[in-house]
Amino acid sequence: MEFDLIDAIKSKAQIDESVDLGIGDDAAVVNISKGSQLVVSTDTLVEGVHFDNSATPKQIGHKALAVNLSDLAAMGATPKWVTLNLTLPQIDTGWVEEFIAGFLSLAEKYQINLIGGDTTSGPLSITVTVFGEVKKGQALTRTGARRGDLIAVTGEIGSAAFSLKNKYSGLVDALHTPEPQLEISQQIKSFAHSCIDVSDGLLADLGHICKASALGAKISLEQIPVNSAVKDSTPQWSSHVLSGGDDYQLCFTFDAKDLDKLPANCSIIGQMGCGEGVKVFANNQEIKVASKGFIHFNQTDK
Amino acid sequence: MEFDLIDAIKSKAQIDESVDLGIGDDAAVVNISKGSQLVVSTDTLVEGVHFDNSATPKQIGHKALAVNLSDLAAMGATPKWVTLNLTLPQIDTGWVEEFIAGFLSLAEKYQINLIGGDTTSGPLSITVTVFGEVKKGQALTRTGARRGDLIAVTGEIGSAAFSLKNKYSGLVDALHTPEPQLEISQQIKSFAHSCIDVSDGLLADLGHICKASALGAKISLEQIPVNSAVKDSTPQWSSHVLSGGDDYQLCFTFDAKDLDKLPANCSIIGQMGCGEGVKVFANNQEIKVASKGFIHFNQTDK
Repeated sequence: MEFDLIDAIKSKAQIDESVDLGIGDDAAVVNISKGSQLVVSTDTLVEGVHFDNSATPKQIGHKALAVNLSDLAAMGATPKWVTLNLTLPQIDTGWVEEFIAGFLSLAEKYQINLIGGDTTSGPLSITVTVFGEVKKGQALTRTGARRGDLIAVTGEIGSAAFSLKNKYSGLVDALHTPEPQLEISQQIKSFAHSCIDVSDGLLADLGHICKASALGAKISLEQIPVNSAVKDSTPQWSSHVLSGGDDYQLCFTFDAKDLDKLPANCSIIGQMGCGEGVKVFANNQEIKVASKGFIHFNQTDK
Repeated sequence: MEFDLIDAIKSKAQIDESVDLGIGDDAAVVNISKGSQLVVSTDTLVEGVHFDNSATPKQIGHKALAVNLSDLAAMGATPKWVTLNLTLPQIDTGWVEEFIAGFLSLAEKYQINLIGGDTTSGPLSITVTVFGEVKKGQALTRTGARRGDLIAVTGEIGSAAFSLKNKYSGLVDALHTPEPQLEISQQIKSFAHSCIDVSDGLLADLGHICKASALGAKISLEQIPVNSAVKDSTPQWSSHVLSGGDDYQLCFTFDAKDLDKLPANCSIIGQMGCGEGVKVFANNQEIKVASKGFIHFNQTDK
C-alpha cells in the first residue's frame, strides 16, 4: 500500500533558497544565518485527545502547525522550516489532501518551508516539529520576568475552552483554527522580559512564568479580555478564562516605561511581584480557583 | 494523570554548551557553528509496524534513535541534538525508564543532546527528530553517483530481515539494536560520491541512488557480505539480503582511485554504469528478483 505523499506535497509546497536539500533524501539540509540561534519546538496531536471528529481535516492540518508556531511566537523566534510525521489508519486521499491544504496554507502565510517527515500506518496521530531563528541571546523565555513588570495578554482568553463545550457557538475558529501570534511576538520581543503561550490555561501558564522567574503574579479577572458570547452564556465563564486551555494567545511581562510600545490587541491584566503563584482578584477581592488549568498527560515542551 | 518525564530525563540526560536552552521552555535554543548547515531527519515508529512485543523497551529506545542517526550517517552529518515525542497508552514507569535508558545510552555514545519533545496519551508511537551538522556543501546525497563508481556496503546485509523471521537466531541485535554507521560515515565522506542507508532493502535503496543519479547499477550476489547463519539456514537467504529491510548499513559509491581509503568493514559489491535500475548477477548470470525491497506504507524521509 503506497500513497505518494511526496508528490502530493511537492506539487503544493513552496521552498525558498534557505533549503539546500528538501524532501526526498535521507535528511534535509538547511542554511542558518550567522549570528543566529536555532529554536526548535515539537508537539504530537492524537485523535480524541487534541482534536475530535467535529474538526475537519483542513482544521486539523491548520491546528497541528499552529500550536507549534505558537511556541515559536512565545520565544520571539521567526519560523523557517517544519517537518511533518503523519500516522494514518488507512489511506484516504481526500482526507490527506484537505489536511495538507490546511497545513500548507498556514505554512505559506508565514513563509515556512516543509523540509521532511514521513507517513506511517497506525492510529491517527500527527507530530509537527518547527524550526525558527532568533538573533543570538535574544530568545524570549519564561525566566526573565522582573518584579513590578506589567502582565499582558494578546487577543481574547477562554474562547477555545468555551467552544469545546458549546460546539456551535460561533467561536469555533478559536478552537479549531487558532492563529499563532507571530506578528505581535515580533513587535514585543525588543521590550518584553518574559513570554509564554496560553496553551494549558492562563493560570497554569502564567504560573510557569512565576515559577521560572521566582516571582508571584496578581491579575484582575475584570481586566482579562473575554468574548461577550462567553461572558453572556454561563455564570462559569471565569473557569474557561482562567483554566481553559488551547487559547494560543501570548502572555508576557514588560516594564511599565515601555507601555507606549504595547501593540493593539494586547490587554494589561496584572503585575508581577514578590511571593509565588498567581493570585486572582475580582471586585478587589481575591478569589480562589479550584483547577489550575488543563493538566496534560505530560509534556516537556509546552 | 501526570508523570514527570522532564525530571526523569533531566536527571539522566547530558547537555553540553551547544544548547543555550534545553527542555522546559516553549522551545529549545541551540547554537549552530559558522560555515555549517543543519541536517534534519525524522521518523515515526509504531507498535506492530516497526517493532513488536519481542523487543524490550530498552531495545525500542535504542532503535528509535538509531534509525534516525542512520539517516544522518547516510548524509555524512555529525549528529548534535534530538527531540523525542512519546505517545503511550498508559503510564508504566518501568517501561518508560527502560526506554529512556536505551535511548539515552545511544545518545550519550555519540554525544547528542536531548533538547525537547513531549509525551501524549494514546496508542504507542514514537517520533524522533535528529539534528546534525555538515560543513557547507559537503552533505552526502543520493544524487552524486558517477558512471564507473564502485559500490560498497558496510557490515553484513540481510541479518535483520532474517532475524525477524527467526527470532532466536542469535542475530537479534541486528534487528532490535542496529548500530548507526556514524564512524564509517565520517571516514568516507571526503571521497564518497553518493550514499544511502539500507532501510528498505538493498535493491530498493541502491535503486534510489540509481534513480537520483540517473544511472544503473550492477551488483554481484556473491560479493554481498552475508552472515553465515543466514546463508546456511535457508535457500531463500538471498531474498533477505536483496529485499529485506531494517539493516541500517550504508551503501555508497566512490571512484576506484580512492580504493585505498576504504575503511575496514566495507565490501565492494558492484559498479555504477549506464542504464537504469539495479541488475543482480550470480554465477555470472543475471538473476531476476521479484520484490524490490520492503515497501513502506509511505515515506518522505527514508
